[in-house]
Amino acid sequence: MAMDALHRSLGVHRVLEPAGVLPQAAARLDADPRIGPDEVRIAVHRLNLDAASYRQLAEEHGGEGDRVRAAVLGIVERRGKMHNPVTGSGGMLIGVVDEVGDDSPLGLEPGQQVATLVSLTLTPLRITDGLARWDGRSEQVPAAGTAVLFARSIAAVLPEDLPQEVALAVLDVCGAPAATERVVHRSGHRPSVAVLGAAGKSGCLSLAAARDARAGRLVGVVRDEREAAALRAARLADEVVVADATDPLAVAAAVGPPVDVTVVCVDTPGAEHGAVLATADGGTVVFFSMATSFSAAALGAEGMAADVTMLVGNGYTPGHAALAMDLYRHSPGVRSLIEPRVRAS
Amino acid sequence: MAMDALHRSLGVHRVLEPAGVLPQAAARLDADPRIGPDEVRIAVHRLNLDAASYRQLAEEHGGEGDRVRAAVLGIVERRGKMHNPVTGSGGMLIGVVDEVGDDSPLGLEPGQQVATLVSLTLTPLRITDGLARWDGRSEQVPAAGTAVLFARSIAAVLPEDLPQEVALAVLDVCGAPAATERVVHRSGHRPSVAVLGAAGKSGCLSLAAARDARAGRLVGVVRDEREAAALRAARLADEVVVADATDPLAVAAAVGPPVDVTVVCVDTPGAEHGAVLATADGGTVVFFSMATSFSAAALGAEGMAADVTMLVGNGYTPGHAALAMDLYRHSPGVRSLIEPRVRAS
Repeated sequence: MAMDALHRSLGVHRVLEPAGVLPQAAARLDADPRIGPDEVRIAVHRLNLDAASYRQLAEEHGGEGDRVRAAVLGIVERRGKMHNPVTGSGGMLIGVVDEVGDDSPLGLEPGQQVATLVSLTLTPLRITDGLARWDGRSEQVPAAGTAVLFARSIAAVLPEDLPQEVALAVLDVCGAPAATERVVHRSGHRPSVAVLGAAGKSGCLSLAAARDARAGRLVGVVRDEREAAALRAARLADEVVVADATDPLAVAAAVGPPVDVTVVCVDTPGAEHGAVLATADGGTVVFFSMATSFSAAALGAEGMAADVTMLVGNGYTPGHAALAMDLYRHSPGVRSLIEPRVRAS
Repeated sequence: MAMDALHRSLGVHRVLEPAGVLPQAAARLDADPRIGPDEVRIAVHRLNLDAASYRQLAEEHGGEGDRVRAAVLGIVERRGKMHNPVTGSGGMLIGVVDEVGDDSPLGLEPGQQVATLVSLTLTPLRITDGLARWDGRSEQVPAAGTAVLFARSIAAVLPEDLPQEVALAVLDVCGAPAATERVVHRSGHRPSVAVLGAAGKSGCLSLAAARDARAGRLVGVVRDEREAAALRAARLADEVVVADATDPLAVAAAVGPPVDVTVVCVDTPGAEHGAVLATADGGTVVFFSMATSFSAAALGAEGMAADVTMLVGNGYTPGHAALAMDLYRHSPGVRSLIEPRVRAS
């Protein structure tokens, strides 16, 4: 690809300052709703602010809704995107496809309801209703306006057969099952698989993906007996065991014979060494937790002379959104674990 | 492996407190020089303290050599290992193999001069000379005493044909070329490869390893013209280009057509996005820099819709030390880049 086509596909042409950086690194984007040939315009219906970003804004403004709303409007006006300058985080948005450029590779059509799976920190955004329907007291922001997707943005069409909250909950973690499927598929004949944090959203979807990819022995590791009972009832794993993911020897003992693939879906720090110890020589560990420490993983494997391949879980694999939705639709076990979480939130 | 054999191989039986953790996490180890059947005793000749650890000790004790020496002796006496409680770091040691248990899998023989490649933070250590030959003013600590290796420790026999300083400099980074060789070998027919930080120790060894593994087009990325001249003279890459590794678009432009494998050997933060952008869809990025941010890598790839496999560089691959030594011996280009660094240090 020529360099200017690469730049366009990443949205570099929308960067106003500083020139020549990627949109996420930009101080200000051009949010003009007129789209180029490889872009897509979305009519925005709702912003889902990143939890850390909303919390910071609420604290800074003493929890006063009007002031929080004014702050969000100010950021979007100033930066051309909802990129909290303190937390550095954004969120995602829901809307309807409004116009699709002739050269857009995203496969979208006008009228489709979509959720963006790339961060608001790199999405050109214009608000046209002053956020009049938002009281400033929740991360869920009803909004009217426009957003622009680039050739290399990611948006998922929201399915009509699932409640929007369910679809968003599944899309939020759809990278994990897609990557798990790929790793299991590449790990030879019926590899054994352990999932740490197996009763959570990404964990149960990863178990289902591993089984779909013809895993052999399938072990779900959870933190307590309550989760174990729920996971056993869901019938997603051959074995369900309880262990503190931050205790390496306890994890290894609970998993038993080391497995070919370990998938880390726990959201607490300190799970790196247990994952490595639970994995057989020549095996693979996939880290999906944002709490993963790069150095703890690298030095831990070295310190235990563990010949394992360690993967940084990539949130993007082609087809990841559709795969996760299908797993949800076709696995009663996955539904039994995710539905209560959606209802509770 | 039965759980108690696993525990023994990792040295858990040497942990005095708290019970049941791995040696690195222990407050205190049993440094008794009498070895078990799967252990090895080393007669210690020198400790190389971790730079961060030495600096902290020197600052805490006002740079006074006698006090620094007393502090190191106190730590080893109290903890049974040289594990700086403030920095959490250790270092490595050089010595001679003294006794080898019948069941040790390390393949060592008495009389061999070795360097430990696992951290001092998990190595049982006893000092017997009061560090009388050390003035406390350098990270290099002449010492007499004993250390114990477990079944899953790693020690490299120091070659007789290379100066000790050269061998240590190469061993320090030997994980990178071994992992690079493996990834290139697994990446199909003559994959193209880019190395960021290609003129450094781990970078030039990784280039040589990639060529040995039958890489196709080989690109070395360096930070300035001085490094570029040195790398061109070393003839380790087909193309040598200059780019700021923390500028993603500059890296992508410098590398040109995206490569199948990108190896990150720069020691500054912020190289994640450039590495991802320089890599073709379906390709692999190997992160060897301890400055790598897990979340920057994961979110960056997602934000750019990049379908790349990202690996946490594992410092351990079987045979890594011998491979790195061989690359050094047989590649005049590698020697031309590493020798000046050793002389300068």
